[in-house]
Amino acid sequence: MAKQPAKPLALTLGEPAGIGPDITIAAWLKRRELDLPAFYLLGDEALIARRAKALGAAVRIASVTTGEAEAAFPEALPVVASGEPASAAPGKPDASSAPAALASIRQAVTDVREGRAGAVVTNPIAKSVLYRAGFRHPGHTEFLAELAAEDGPTPQPVMMLWSPRLAVVPVTIHVSLRDALAQLTSELIVSTVRIVATELKSRFGIANPRIAISGLNPHAGEDGSLGHEEQTVIAPAIKTLRGDGIEAKGPLPADTMFHEAARNSYDCAVCMYHDQALIPIKTVAFDDAVNVTLGLPFIRTSPDHGTAFDIAGTGKANPASLIAALRLASRMAAAKTR
Amino acid sequence: MAKQPAKPLALTLGEPAGIGPDITIAAWLKRRELDLPAFYLLGDEALIARRAKALGAAVRIASVTTGEAEAAFPEALPVVASGEPASAAPGKPDASSAPAALASIRQAVTDVREGRAGAVVTNPIAKSVLYRAGFRHPGHTEFLAELAAEDGPTPQPVMMLWSPRLAVVPVTIHVSLRDALAQLTSELIVSTVRIVATELKSRFGIANPRIAISGLNPHAGEDGSLGHEEQTVIAPAIKTLRGDGIEAKGPLPADTMFHEAARNSYDCAVCMYHDQALIPIKTVAFDDAVNVTLGLPFIRTSPDHGTAFDIAGTGKANPASLIAALRLASRMAAAKTR
Repeated sequence: MAKQPAKPLALTLGEPAGIGPDITIAAWLKRRELDLPAFYLLGDEALIARRAKALGAAVRIASVTTGEAEAAFPEALPVVASGEPASAAPGKPDASSAPAALASIRQAVTDVREGRAGAVVTNPIAKSVLYRAGFRHPGHTEFLAELAAEDGPTPQPVMMLWSPRLAVVPVTIHVSLRDALAQLTSELIVSTVRIVATELKSRFGIANPRIAISGLNPHAGEDGSLGHEEQTVIAPAIKTLRGDGIEAKGPLPADTMFHEAARNSYDCAVCMYHDQALIPIKTVAFDDAVNVTLGLPFIRTSPDHGTAFDIAGTGKANPASLIAALRLASRMAAAKTR
Repeated sequence: MAKQPAKPLALTLGEPAGIGPDITIAAWLKRRELDLPAFYLLGDEALIARRAKALGAAVRIASVTTGEAEAAFPEALPVVASGEPASAAPGKPDASSAPAALASIRQAVTDVREGRAGAVVTNPIAKSVLYRAGFRHPGHTEFLAELAAEDGPTPQPVMMLWSPRLAVVPVTIHVSLRDALAQLTSELIVSTVRIVATELKSRFGIANPRIAISGLNPHAGEDGSLGHEEQTVIAPAIKTLRGDGIEAKGPLPADTMFHEAARNSYDCAVCMYHDQALIPIKTVAFDDAVNVTLGLPFIRTSPDHGTAFDIAGTGKANPASLIAALRLASRMAAAKTR
């Protein structure tokens, strides 16, 4: 797989009062040491300059167009104006937060769709702040899916958490456990795994992806004595997927899927609900897991953490997950362009 | 904490056709190298001799009484006859399996209750084999609880999975996820955590046990937007427990409870259902997790794996979990007798 993408990565501002600006600056400062792919921030140059000063960070900022970003990257953090100035102080979202965050996301999607960026990497947003400003999407990912739709049908976004040690996909996501049981269908498992299999090939360069599919119940139901969904919902989905030629195996007991030897037997674990997928990856890759959205017509990665208002502007924010997100986006963009 | 128990450990035979005999022999062979506590097997000397021969293991077997077991241990594997000969060949349970397995368990409980053994360590049984022979308990642990009851009320057994890196307790256990949601009550959480707190003090020597309690839903319900059980069931239980003076915290988002730094902030994680507890411990301690039964009037540990019929008698069985179970039983017995 090629090491560098053909185009720079479009990095969104995220919530201006959160740690997005901090980790963006911290990642750019490590660009040489870690040989990071070129990226540019879509945001407000003045906000970044203020945050750099607050952090005492020696960072040159270059106000550029997208076309100039890659050339500027080695010597300065390239900032492409999103057109919405952001006045929020660290930890204190204000009326500028939502317009600045949303403009940055919209511009990043435009850039990647029009071929000026290799991928979209998103800094964390604060949903509660956006809701107060009239945002009507369940979350970041659904907003991206709608932007991706343009005037056509909205694609099914699939959330993958990826790390070098483990990749997981939950079939049901941000719903109560009770609702997850109600939402789980063979159709949802099939449509999710098809997207996973397609993108493991096209964007991760894995010719024959091996997909491990968990059961829902303890011991994957123990032949029906601890629950029937394995027999009525999951096994039929796996049969359909195998009929498609997808190397899917399961339903597997979830508790024995994630130790090191087991992890080496598959490329991605598809799980039935949020914690079944998130517990193992956050146990083995807490600092450097990356959130990847599959199913969109462009590449989107994101650090796997929130805005951390309590440490914004303090220098305590860890850029490891953003760095991992930038690297993975670059790797995926390179795989895609082969 | 003292390193040796005052009394030898009573090790049950388990399913004679499973790997119990194999790992018992393998553990005894490592007694010097690993400085293992003295134990004796309750079973059939002839079966052990046949298995040792099949394995090509150079093991001396001493047919002893319980009182002679500790003195015999350094030079020979002490076997105390349980009175039920076991004829089953490796991987092939037969009509002798259930009587031999059950007699061994009954005798171990008698030994520990009458003060001849420091703790009970159980080799894996095959429930399906026992059921065919008329066994009417849901499992090993419930059988032990009934033996513990004698003529009084049956105690509430609590399953803990323990490793040096993490200890977990599921509040609901071997039921479907749907039934776990139905069974979860504040009362069950309270009674479970009280037993955990009491035994972390009395049997693990932890003066002020710190107990982390998970939520049920993703992000512990995110203030009710992803489920209400945190507010209606779990938080009230924690309030009651804190009123008892127990250092219980939660409900915590389950996915961020198990990375290394988080694990260091508590002594035991109490989880709402099987996989929430078992996924993290089997991810970080697959080979050497120990199953501990709390709530009984004696100490009981067990390796955290099954009978593995497919590898019985082949030499492939890994004794790591049994060795960990023997060591933990010894440590608990020493803490208890202080």
